[in-house]
Amino acid sequence: MKVTLSLLQKASKQIDKYALYVPKSGTFPKGFKIATRATGVKKNGNLDLGILRNVNTSRPSSAAALFTTNKFKAAPVLVSKEVLEVTGGANVDAIVVNSGCANAVTGEVGLKDAKSIANLANEKLGKQNATLVMSTGVIGQRLSMDKIVPAVSEQFDTDAFRDDFEAWLDLAKAVSTTDTFPKLITSGFKLENGTEYTLTGIAKGAGMICPNMATLLGFIVTDLPITPSALQKMLRSATDRSFNCISVDGDMSTNDTISMIANGAVDTDVIDENSKDFAQVQSQVTEFAQQLAQLVVRDGEGSTKFVTVNVKNSLHFKDAKIIAESISNSMLVKTALYGQDANWGRILCAIGYAKLDNLQSLDDKKINVSFVATDNSQPKELKLIVDGVPQLNMDESRASELLTQQDLEILVDLGTGSEECQFWTCDLTHEYVTINGDYRS
Amino acid sequence: MKVTLSLLQKASKQIDKYALYVPKSGTFPKGFKIATRATGVKKNGNLDLGILRNVNTSRPSSAAALFTTNKFKAAPVLVSKEVLEVTGGANVDAIVVNSGCANAVTGEVGLKDAKSIANLANEKLGKQNATLVMSTGVIGQRLSMDKIVPAVSEQFDTDAFRDDFEAWLDLAKAVSTTDTFPKLITSGFKLENGTEYTLTGIAKGAGMICPNMATLLGFIVTDLPITPSALQKMLRSATDRSFNCISVDGDMSTNDTISMIANGAVDTDVIDENSKDFAQVQSQVTEFAQQLAQLVVRDGEGSTKFVTVNVKNSLHFKDAKIIAESISNSMLVKTALYGQDANWGRILCAIGYAKLDNLQSLDDKKINVSFVATDNSQPKELKLIVDGVPQLNMDESRASELLTQQDLEILVDLGTGSEECQFWTCDLTHEYVTINGDYRS
Repeated sequence: MKVTLSLLQKASKQIDKYALYVPKSGTFPKGFKIATRATGVKKNGNLDLGILRNVNTSRPSSAAALFTTNKFKAAPVLVSKEVLEVTGGANVDAIVVNSGCANAVTGEVGLKDAKSIANLANEKLGKQNATLVMSTGVIGQRLSMDKIVPAVSEQFDTDAFRDDFEAWLDLAKAVSTTDTFPKLITSGFKLENGTEYTLTGIAKGAGMICPNMATLLGFIVTDLPITPSALQKMLRSATDRSFNCISVDGDMSTNDTISMIANGAVDTDVIDENSKDFAQVQSQVTEFAQQLAQLVVRDGEGSTKFVTVNVKNSLHFKDAKIIAESISNSMLVKTALYGQDANWGRILCAIGYAKLDNLQSLDDKKINVSFVATDNSQPKELKLIVDGVPQLNMDESRASELLTQQDLEILVDLGTGSEECQFWTCDLTHEYVTINGDYRS
Repeated sequence: MKVTLSLLQKASKQIDKYALYVPKSGTFPKGFKIATRATGVKKNGNLDLGILRNVNTSRPSSAAALFTTNKFKAAPVLVSKEVLEVTGGANVDAIVVNSGCANAVTGEVGLKDAKSIANLANEKLGKQNATLVMSTGVIGQRLSMDKIVPAVSEQFDTDAFRDDFEAWLDLAKAVSTTDTFPKLITSGFKLENGTEYTLTGIAKGAGMICPNMATLLGFIVTDLPITPSALQKMLRSATDRSFNCISVDGDMSTNDTISMIANGAVDTDVIDENSKDFAQVQSQVTEFAQQLAQLVVRDGEGSTKFVTVNVKNSLHFKDAKIIAESISNSMLVKTALYGQDANWGRILCAIGYAKLDNLQSLDDKKINVSFVATDNSQPKELKLIVDGVPQLNMDESRASELLTQQDLEILVDLGTGSEECQFWTCDLTHEYVTINGDYRS
């Protein structure tokens, strides 16, 4: 019992994430409007339906998306995928998202339900193939169409759409499931032409988070003008470096979707893959997606720690990523982090069983492993392994000090090349087990 | 809080595993003797050193072993591996095992320590390269040689070796770490010649259990006469179907070793790969290894459930195993089992993200998934997915009934071929997190 109590005491020191990570105001891209509603699908009466509309009419919008690679794709994934294939990403003007029920593994009826919702929104928009649908929540249950369909209709019929800060925050709330805070970020950026554009992103966590396009629901909107193909290319690259580099529990969901709509409401030239600004936009979007993805890890189910796993100087990028992923997914590493136990042997162990693409990437005589402080405390780097030699007399009290902090970096220097990969993970806690042991109840 | 309490109440119904799985007597192979000791390496004063000796002198013994594939092999693994390479598995007459400290990631000093212990035993035996060493416990700490060395000497010098039931049970206790019960099984078998032989197996769990030669410490001894090469072949095959088909947490340790010594104390002809009895012995040893491996899962850290994952009718064996492993390792499946939540969507989801070798092995129109009762209750099989169609109106109360039982089978019929794989896993519980959050404290 002593053990349990000490862990619970540690966990109770948990900070107020809502206060830290939820904005209190913001500027949003021009030409988007939002309506949200509590339809009753969520038993607790919270918001569970959101509609995001592009209302800019100056030019056609561009949309892009990446979907789960799970063999059992949920109905909304299949429907949204088809919309993008048919339209090539042009003229997609709405996202309808519900939480509380994932409409996954629901067979033909589930597919029909998802299509009905998309068609209803299309009808209200007076267009065809203009709506993406997303669902999140319990797998293997049908959508309550009696609740969702009238709610979607009503939002359009009463023109419930708004574009103030509260509306955006409500949209982030409407996609949440076990999230402890809504995930909304917004950021402006300027291109060389001097014009300012805005990016806004919303995501939901917080379980079933695993690398390899195995993420969550997330969408990013911007008022930048860009072609659909350039947008798709940009989103793919940004996702590979953000949502595909996070781990909560190693499970990949049937519903994971990251989508992006750019409506071009800011009146400048349309950007394509060959534009001189493309690289800058790419880098802006990647950094933005990383911030959004990191929020998902910060709210990993039951988590008390946010850990950056930085694997550098690898012979190959792929192996840096495989090693970072192996550490990030290890249940033993994650429980040690929770227990604030400097059990760095488990980190080594997880590196050792990573299934590398090229064995040369890992040389047990060259590897260096450290804990790195994320605040200004000194020494910044606490070396655990130096050129393959374990530091058996390392400063345990400094290690404990670093492990009591909410943010921590694990640095692995492979010393075999010059590639690197950053990964973000969290700890595994009693609360994770509680949340997922009784999720459907 | 309500959620947590309900889970804790469920967990408190846990049965007395010690009473169920620990034998109270047994017959053991001829010609082996054991000494055990509490050296003080384990802070709680429990047994932490065991020596198993072959004392049969009628012919040379045969030994075989399989070791972890982790890149960072612990010192005892490197030492034992070398002994088998040098001797070809002939004339290995002792296993010295300690618990409480794994002597892993301890560099050159660790290697020197492991060699010293092996050499000390060799000296006492009056032979060279006759001792395998095994260690289990915390990674990254040096062995307390001041405690272990005199204890090993004393066992030989005072001839503390015995062969009664208590001695064997003490050996199983001496290799335990977080195990809640010692794992000792023994079984006789007859060959066509009418002679009876005995197999005795000891294993320790209970965390860091993952497929792919990622097991634990385990050893099996027998009085059967068999050549070293036939023994190695047999152990490899048995391990692939037993210790490589279990999962507790998906972590693969630096120390995993399964070894076997056959001393030929029963005076019959020596068996080799071409003997007519080889197939029968192979099958006996495989079944025996499965029983021993299953005990490790039954004692998975903090577990309350024992789950057989049976994937059948696969196009390829490898894909059946990959799917079984994916279900067995899923944290979401494991927490749902703990919560006795019939959240079968998570099973489908874990099948869907399995990284198959051949995509043809999984056809989403042909897959059948069921819960299968392991007692005599009816209906024995509760169908969740039939030919790819989810049974949305399946009998939830029967599902809950099946999930309250300690033993459960998940049956996946892929319908694409005729290969099959059985895997054994356990649930993920609050207690797992407690044990692994504070392991070193």
